[in-house]
Amino acid sequence: MGVIEKCYSYTRSREGKASGYYPFFVSFDGRTDGVARLSDGRELVMCGSNDYLGLSTDPRVTGAAAEAARDLGAGCTGSRLLNGNLELHERLERELAAFFGKEAALVLTTGYQANLGAVAGLCGPGDTVFVDKDAHASLIDAVRLSRARLQWFDHNDTADLAAKLARHPGRGGRLVAVDGVYSMEGDLCPLPELVRVCEEFDATLLVDDAHGAGVLSAGRGTCDHFGLTDRVPLITLTFSKAFGSIGGAVLGDEAVIEYLRHHARSLLFSASSSPANTAAALAALDIVRDEPWRCETVVKKADYMRRELAALGYRTGNSESPVVPVDTHDELHTVIGWKRLMEEGVYVNAVLPPAASPRLRTSYTAVQTDEHLERTLAAFATVRSDLGPVLTDAA
Amino acid sequence: MGVIEKCYSYTRSREGKASGYYPFFVSFDGRTDGVARLSDGRELVMCGSNDYLGLSTDPRVTGAAAEAARDLGAGCTGSRLLNGNLELHERLERELAAFFGKEAALVLTTGYQANLGAVAGLCGPGDTVFVDKDAHASLIDAVRLSRARLQWFDHNDTADLAAKLARHPGRGGRLVAVDGVYSMEGDLCPLPELVRVCEEFDATLLVDDAHGAGVLSAGRGTCDHFGLTDRVPLITLTFSKAFGSIGGAVLGDEAVIEYLRHHARSLLFSASSSPANTAAALAALDIVRDEPWRCETVVKKADYMRRELAALGYRTGNSESPVVPVDTHDELHTVIGWKRLMEEGVYVNAVLPPAASPRLRTSYTAVQTDEHLERTLAAFATVRSDLGPVLTDAA
Repeated sequence: MGVIEKCYSYTRSREGKASGYYPFFVSFDGRTDGVARLSDGRELVMCGSNDYLGLSTDPRVTGAAAEAARDLGAGCTGSRLLNGNLELHERLERELAAFFGKEAALVLTTGYQANLGAVAGLCGPGDTVFVDKDAHASLIDAVRLSRARLQWFDHNDTADLAAKLARHPGRGGRLVAVDGVYSMEGDLCPLPELVRVCEEFDATLLVDDAHGAGVLSAGRGTCDHFGLTDRVPLITLTFSKAFGSIGGAVLGDEAVIEYLRHHARSLLFSASSSPANTAAALAALDIVRDEPWRCETVVKKADYMRRELAALGYRTGNSESPVVPVDTHDELHTVIGWKRLMEEGVYVNAVLPPAASPRLRTSYTAVQTDEHLERTLAAFATVRSDLGPVLTDAA
Repeated sequence: MGVIEKCYSYTRSREGKASGYYPFFVSFDGRTDGVARLSDGRELVMCGSNDYLGLSTDPRVTGAAAEAARDLGAGCTGSRLLNGNLELHERLERELAAFFGKEAALVLTTGYQANLGAVAGLCGPGDTVFVDKDAHASLIDAVRLSRARLQWFDHNDTADLAAKLARHPGRGGRLVAVDGVYSMEGDLCPLPELVRVCEEFDATLLVDDAHGAGVLSAGRGTCDHFGLTDRVPLITLTFSKAFGSIGGAVLGDEAVIEYLRHHARSLLFSASSSPANTAAALAALDIVRDEPWRCETVVKKADYMRRELAALGYRTGNSESPVVPVDTHDELHTVIGWKRLMEEGVYVNAVLPPAASPRLRTSYTAVQTDEHLERTLAAFATVRSDLGPVLTDAA
C-alpha cells in the first residue's frame, strides 16, 4: 500500500474553507510598519507577526538584503561545507557570538534547521532529551531526528524535570531543551531553576531563544535577562522573528560549535543561507545593538495591551513578552473571534489544538503606533459580545 | 552526563586545518559567471557549484530578489500557516505545478525541509520507506524524522528493491524514495523500472529531483526526461541548484498537496521563504522556461568535460548530467588533488567518506566560457602527476 491514500479522504481543511471560518494560510501581498495588506487589497493592523522590532521592513534591513542579492547572488547554490560558505556567513557568526556573549556561533539556513542541527548533531540513540511540554515543534522534530529518547516534562515545572532526571541516570548523554520565551503563551522559562537542576544532574541545557533574542534585555535575550548566559551551554536563535529575516544560529563554546560544524546534518546537507537573508540578519543585528529603544518600546506596548485586554474582560495568560495570548473557550469561538477581528481590521493568529489550547495569539511590534493599538482594542471591545465564553469569570 | 563532552575531544577538523589540507568551508566573497572569488581576493574557475544554469548571478534573478526585499520585506517573520503566507508563494506554486506538469505544488523554505515535509508529512510509525543507498541525506533524515522503518536498497538496483518490497508486504504504507539525478555521481535513477516496480507492489514513488529539475528535458527534470511525470506521485525540488536561489517544493496531486499543507511539520513550524528567495526562484523559473538553450548548453559542456577528462586518464564514473565525479584513489589523494587544483586556479569539491567514496566532484554551468573549461582541463592535466593512483587502468 502506498502512503498517499489517506490524502484523498482528508477533508477537514476543505470543510473549514467551505464554512468561511478557515483561519490559515491567509494570503498577504505586502506590509509596512504595523500594517499588513491582504491579496484583496484590504489593510489590517498586524497583531499576528513575530516582527517584534519592526525590522523586516526597515529600509536599512531590506536595503542590505537587496544589495547583497545584487552583489553576491540570489543564492549560494550549495552547502557551506562544499561550496556555499560566504565571508558574510562567518561575519554574522562572529557578530552574533560577540553580541550574545558566547564563544562561537554557527549560522544555519532556518531556525528550524538550527534546532535540528544542534540536537541531532549532538544527540543520538542512547541519549535522552528532556523537553518542556510546550517547547517549539522544531525541538521535538530535532529529538525525533536524533533518535535519542524523548522525555517530556511538565511546562516550566523544574521539580518534574528534576524527578525525571533522577529517574533516568543512565550512561547516555542528557540534554534538556526548553524555549526561552514560549511562542504561544509569551511566558518565560524559569531559567535560574533550570540551570540549577541541569547542573545538579550534569545535564546539558539548550535554550531556544527564538522569541527572546532581539527582544529581552536590550536584545540579548532570555539568558542575558537572567544574567545566566555563561551557564547555558547551548542557545539557539532564529532570524525570522525580531531580526526580520530568516535563518538561525547555534551559540556555544568554540569546541561545541566546531563539532557541530562537522556533525549537524541540517547544516551539511542543506544549501547555505542566501546572501540577502544573511545580510538582512546582519543589518538587523546592527540595529538591535544601536537602538535599544525598540526592545523597550515593544515590551511596554505589550504591557499596555495586556492591561487593556484584561480590562475588557479577556484572559491573557502568563505572558511576559510581546506575545499576548487571548484565551478562547473552544475552537468554534476561536475562529469566530479571528474572523470578526479581521472584519474589524485587525489580524491575529487563530491557534487551535493540537498546537495549543484554543486562543487568539496577539503579538506586538516596536513600530506599531498608538492608533494601531487603540484600533486593536476597539476591535476586541466590539467582538466581545460574539465571544461570551472568552470572558474571565470575574468579568 | 551532558551531550557536549565529546566535542572537547573532537580534533579531526583542527588536524586537517593544521596540515594545510582541509577542503571544507572555504570562504567565498563573491562570484560572477563561472568564477568565484575567495575571501583573500583570489579568483577561481568555479567547477564546484550547483548553479547549473548560471542563474544565481543573473541580473534578472538578483534584481527580482532585490525588488522583492524592498517591496515585501526582508522576511515574513512567521509560518505560512499563521502569518507568513504571501501571494508570491502561491504564485510560485501555481507556476511550478504548471511547468513541471503536476496538479499542485507546495513551497517550503529549503529543499531539505521539502524532503522532510514530504516524507514525514505522509509516513509514520508502521510505514516503511525504501531508500536508494546513494539517496540524498535529506531523504534519510526525512525517514528518521517520520519514524517510519528505513529499508535501504542497492543503488539503482530495481531487482533489489523488488525483492525488498516482496519481503515487506505489511499493512503499513510503503514509500520508495530516490534521487532523480544523484548529486555525487551525476547518474540518473532508472525511472522506468522504478515506476514499474512501485506500481507492481503498490508502493508510492518519490523522486527528489534537486539536481535534475531545471537541467534535464528543457528544465522539466528527470521525470519528464523519461516521459513519466504522470506516473510519479511525488516529486520534490530545490531552488538552490539550477534555480539559483534557495527553497524547495513538493509536487503532486492537489489532494496530496492539500494534505501536506496541513501535516508537513517542516512547513507548519518554520518561517516561510523570504520574499527575495521566493521572487528569485520565480524569476529563475521564467528564464528556465524562456531560455531552453541553457539546459542544452550545460549538458553539452558536461559531455565535453567527461570526454576530455577521460582523455587525460581520469575515471568519471556513470555521470549523465552536469555533475562529473573524478575518482580518486583515497582520502589523501583527494585532498592533495583538491589543493593542487586550487593552486592552479580551479575550485572543485573534495568528497570524502562517509559522504561517498573519495572523489573530486566537478560540476558545470551554462555560463562557463570555453576558456574556463580549457583552464580547468589544463589544471587537471598539470596535477595528474601528483595523483598517480587516480588514473584509469588503461591510462
